[in-house]
Amino acid sequence: MAGQARVLYDFEGQPGTSELSIITGEILNVTSKDVGEGWWEGSNQRGLSGIFPAAYVEAIVQTYNVPPAMPPPPLPQIYVEENTAPVIQQQSQYDDDWDDDWDDDVSEVNPASHPANAAGGRSNSDVGSALDVNLAGLKLGDGKGTVRKNLNRFSHFVKTGGEAYILGASKVTATDSDYIQIIETNDGITWAPNPQPYSCVVASPKKESKLKGLKSFIAYQLTPSLNNIQVSRRYKHFDWLHERLVEKFCIIPIPPLPDKQISGRYEEQFIERRRLQLQSFVSRVSNHPILSRSDVWLHFLTCTDAKRWKSGKRKAEKDEVIGAAIFSVVQVPEKALDPLQLDSQTEAFGRFVQSFDTAVRTMQSNFAEQVKRQQGPYKRDYQRIGQSFRTLSSAMELLETAPLTRALAHTADTYDQIALLCEDQPRLDFEPMGDLLHDYRGLLASFPDIITVHKGALQKRRELERSAAEGKTESNVVIRAQQRTDVVSYTLLAEMSYFHQQRVHDYNAAAKIFLQEQIAYYQKIVDHLQSTLSQYKDV
Amino acid sequence: MAGQARVLYDFEGQPGTSELSIITGEILNVTSKDVGEGWWEGSNQRGLSGIFPAAYVEAIVQTYNVPPAMPPPPLPQIYVEENTAPVIQQQSQYDDDWDDDWDDDVSEVNPASHPANAAGGRSNSDVGSALDVNLAGLKLGDGKGTVRKNLNRFSHFVKTGGEAYILGASKVTATDSDYIQIIETNDGITWAPNPQPYSCVVASPKKESKLKGLKSFIAYQLTPSLNNIQVSRRYKHFDWLHERLVEKFCIIPIPPLPDKQISGRYEEQFIERRRLQLQSFVSRVSNHPILSRSDVWLHFLTCTDAKRWKSGKRKAEKDEVIGAAIFSVVQVPEKALDPLQLDSQTEAFGRFVQSFDTAVRTMQSNFAEQVKRQQGPYKRDYQRIGQSFRTLSSAMELLETAPLTRALAHTADTYDQIALLCEDQPRLDFEPMGDLLHDYRGLLASFPDIITVHKGALQKRRELERSAAEGKTESNVVIRAQQRTDVVSYTLLAEMSYFHQQRVHDYNAAAKIFLQEQIAYYQKIVDHLQSTLSQYKDV
Repeated sequence: MAGQARVLYDFEGQPGTSELSIITGEILNVTSKDVGEGWWEGSNQRGLSGIFPAAYVEAIVQTYNVPPAMPPPPLPQIYVEENTAPVIQQQSQYDDDWDDDWDDDVSEVNPASHPANAAGGRSNSDVGSALDVNLAGLKLGDGKGTVRKNLNRFSHFVKTGGEAYILGASKVTATDSDYIQIIETNDGITWAPNPQPYSCVVASPKKESKLKGLKSFIAYQLTPSLNNIQVSRRYKHFDWLHERLVEKFCIIPIPPLPDKQISGRYEEQFIERRRLQLQSFVSRVSNHPILSRSDVWLHFLTCTDAKRWKSGKRKAEKDEVIGAAIFSVVQVPEKALDPLQLDSQTEAFGRFVQSFDTAVRTMQSNFAEQVKRQQGPYKRDYQRIGQSFRTLSSAMELLETAPLTRALAHTADTYDQIALLCEDQPRLDFEPMGDLLHDYRGLLASFPDIITVHKGALQKRRELERSAAEGKTESNVVIRAQQRTDVVSYTLLAEMSYFHQQRVHDYNAAAKIFLQEQIAYYQKIVDHLQSTLSQYKDV
Repeated sequence: MAGQARVLYDFEGQPGTSELSIITGEILNVTSKDVGEGWWEGSNQRGLSGIFPAAYVEAIVQTYNVPPAMPPPPLPQIYVEENTAPVIQQQSQYDDDWDDDWDDDVSEVNPASHPANAAGGRSNSDVGSALDVNLAGLKLGDGKGTVRKNLNRFSHFVKTGGEAYILGASKVTATDSDYIQIIETNDGITWAPNPQPYSCVVASPKKESKLKGLKSFIAYQLTPSLNNIQVSRRYKHFDWLHERLVEKFCIIPIPPLPDKQISGRYEEQFIERRRLQLQSFVSRVSNHPILSRSDVWLHFLTCTDAKRWKSGKRKAEKDEVIGAAIFSVVQVPEKALDPLQLDSQTEAFGRFVQSFDTAVRTMQSNFAEQVKRQQGPYKRDYQRIGQSFRTLSSAMELLETAPLTRALAHTADTYDQIALLCEDQPRLDFEPMGDLLHDYRGLLASFPDIITVHKGALQKRRELERSAAEGKTESNVVIRAQQRTDVVSYTLLAEMSYFHQQRVHDYNAAAKIFLQEQIAYYQKIVDHLQSTLSQYKDV
């Protein structure tokens, strides 16, 4: 049993196949996620079983618990989330070709092809990306892909020398640019700000093609204020970068990339939405005091030369200052931290993350539903009101084309216009909010692991303290361990502080934009109605 | 086979009974309308059959055709629409008791009683009036009862001496107050205006009871500007009056009464809605140049004494100037009318009536649907948006009660308030428009018959003309017949003219009110949203 899943979208199985028809809201028992090609197998509550598209359901995730005091043993190998191939295998696919064949933007998927029949092999493609179903209307919160290639940070921490670091046995070759500073200010413990803050604009997505038009993709133009030199990046470059950042910064949640999507990808609206989502990713990294200064990011942001790109890529992939090793380059205030206070702080933070994550999911699913409602039933309802006035006007026109007849026809047109407003509106309010929620689901999903990394370090420290009390460990080892776990704690506190600051800023801004757009929408309706009201004479 | 019916509301049959579950929009084949107690029998398109509440469906009526040149022969007896008992039987129920037992407002219907078990016998009660289902939400356009006790006007015309009138053989005793005048003005042929126009206010519906509270009913207070003396009238008095008016004025469509309804009848909103509907009826009669001056109406409007009520009631029931006899008291311009022009005028009018009726039905059903949508899904959708913000606010409150937390909670409350606005709004826009449409369905339903009456008269005239041409009829008989059919034609033209004038006025006013209320609604939403937007700080 691979758990349960909630159905997000209706899917009608083809008769005579093993496909299971599923209904939005249903809870399915998932019996296998290994069906392949974006399909899962399971049964519904009426006892019927079969396969269904994984992209149409959302796995019911256990709510995050504050990690247990005793962290679980490290996993035998790097764990990656279901539906993505093991990282090692993936790595091999990143060859040095600037325009290699592993292409995220292949447009030649036969639109009539069925997921189960689609040419396979790209196990790291998003679930359901080959689906021929038009997902254009389902742009929000489909609950998949939010957490991309989410390494288990704790096992990564252990694998990359976490224990050795605490014990002071690690040796890391770091360059100056690697050093990370944490300071204490009036606002508490924070990252030292980037002395050269900059921003970056993502603009002008262009459809490009190669192999004589056989393959096509979108290239996005990034212009950092650092140097004002534009670089062109494809989704696969973002993807590669994202993986490097996750690997490197085991205690910083990396903003998620937008979900992959094939259907309707060349429609203008989709491209613009994707651009906005990538802009959000780029801004989040550019604004982050630590991420914004990392070599790999700056390489991504500034490299304009294919040859330098390849060497920078290789260098980044061989970076040793990743995972636990990063703590060796963190400079923290001298003050020792109180482990008890830390415990209660991280526990409260864990509870907050859990509750915030639930709220984000609730809003994401409610807003996604609202988008569907406005683009479907609401739109039709306005059109039906329009149709009522039109029929009335036409009937009266049989007798005469009086002012009333014309006014009624105008009102019919007005409601048709309102119907179109209603359909388009989510682009301006619900969808941007949905993008923010998508970002936060990605960010929040990292925290339970981050907390576990921290707990793991504290756990190791306590072991050493106990061992020293029993005379089994030298006191200088313990003191070193205490200093070094404080480094881990300082980084967590700095990132918590940064996260809160961003959260307040982001939600305040997003709620304001949402409300402003809602106001503008209803105001536009008022204006339309007022204009049609003026068509009626005083009789 | 008793025709087909369209399902207006979902109804779930009780398992283990012969009840048929029906779904809104479904087309049923009705096999019997004689099941009784408000039930019909039929089958759905999946082949299931059973009984279902007649009030939940709408019989699919053949669209009106312009009556054939040869009117159908008179029916053997006065025809009344299904679900109402023959008029003769009904008459007997109007005894002279001011507060007789035939009570439209019986409130003792056991709310748990099932239509099939309810004590029966009142075959003239509205279909489904004993239903225990709460129909409060279904106030618009249920398509039943619109045409109450709709005598076949043509057969009524014939029975009340139509032929004798054309032949000049009828003898009618009329009083001065009976005389009706038609004039020709710049606007064409119209009724002479009421020299003493007045209005009447329907106010203060009061719940009253008798038999020690065993029976209760609503009494409405009518105050005509004629004398400013208030009279108290119950629905049954309106019902009686309506029947008299239909009987008397065979060429004037009588405004319909509101549908009977039991469920929720004592809820304030229902009573207020009923009052508005009765006000509309009273205003339409008071404004009509002819109806407003009729004895029976003035009796209804001014009689304050139980004894005088009884004698006036008896007098009205014995009135001889009804049906065809009314033409004897109509005074018309001397100019003879052109029969060919009349033919084309009435034919065009017939087509207009048919098309207008379709438009009214379309709008009625669309608006009824919109009411349900706003009170159901729309309301829930706004609440769901509110809930999203509330969950977010609660999650953040775990950490701090910051301005953002409070602003988000305020936004949640705002959307809850908008949900309530949305639920209440139909009372102000869709329902008043629905009441107008109800009136027009009633008025329009009379016209095909009225046109048939007119056609019948012209047909008789042509017969006489042919007969005279063959020397079989004396020319003075033909001349008299021509004069007299002109009287019939003049009354039709006068009423057509009045109807058009009212139509333009009513729809112009109703569309304006509808749009004004829609604007006010969206403006209120804008105001609510602006107020919650101001809760967010500039960060």
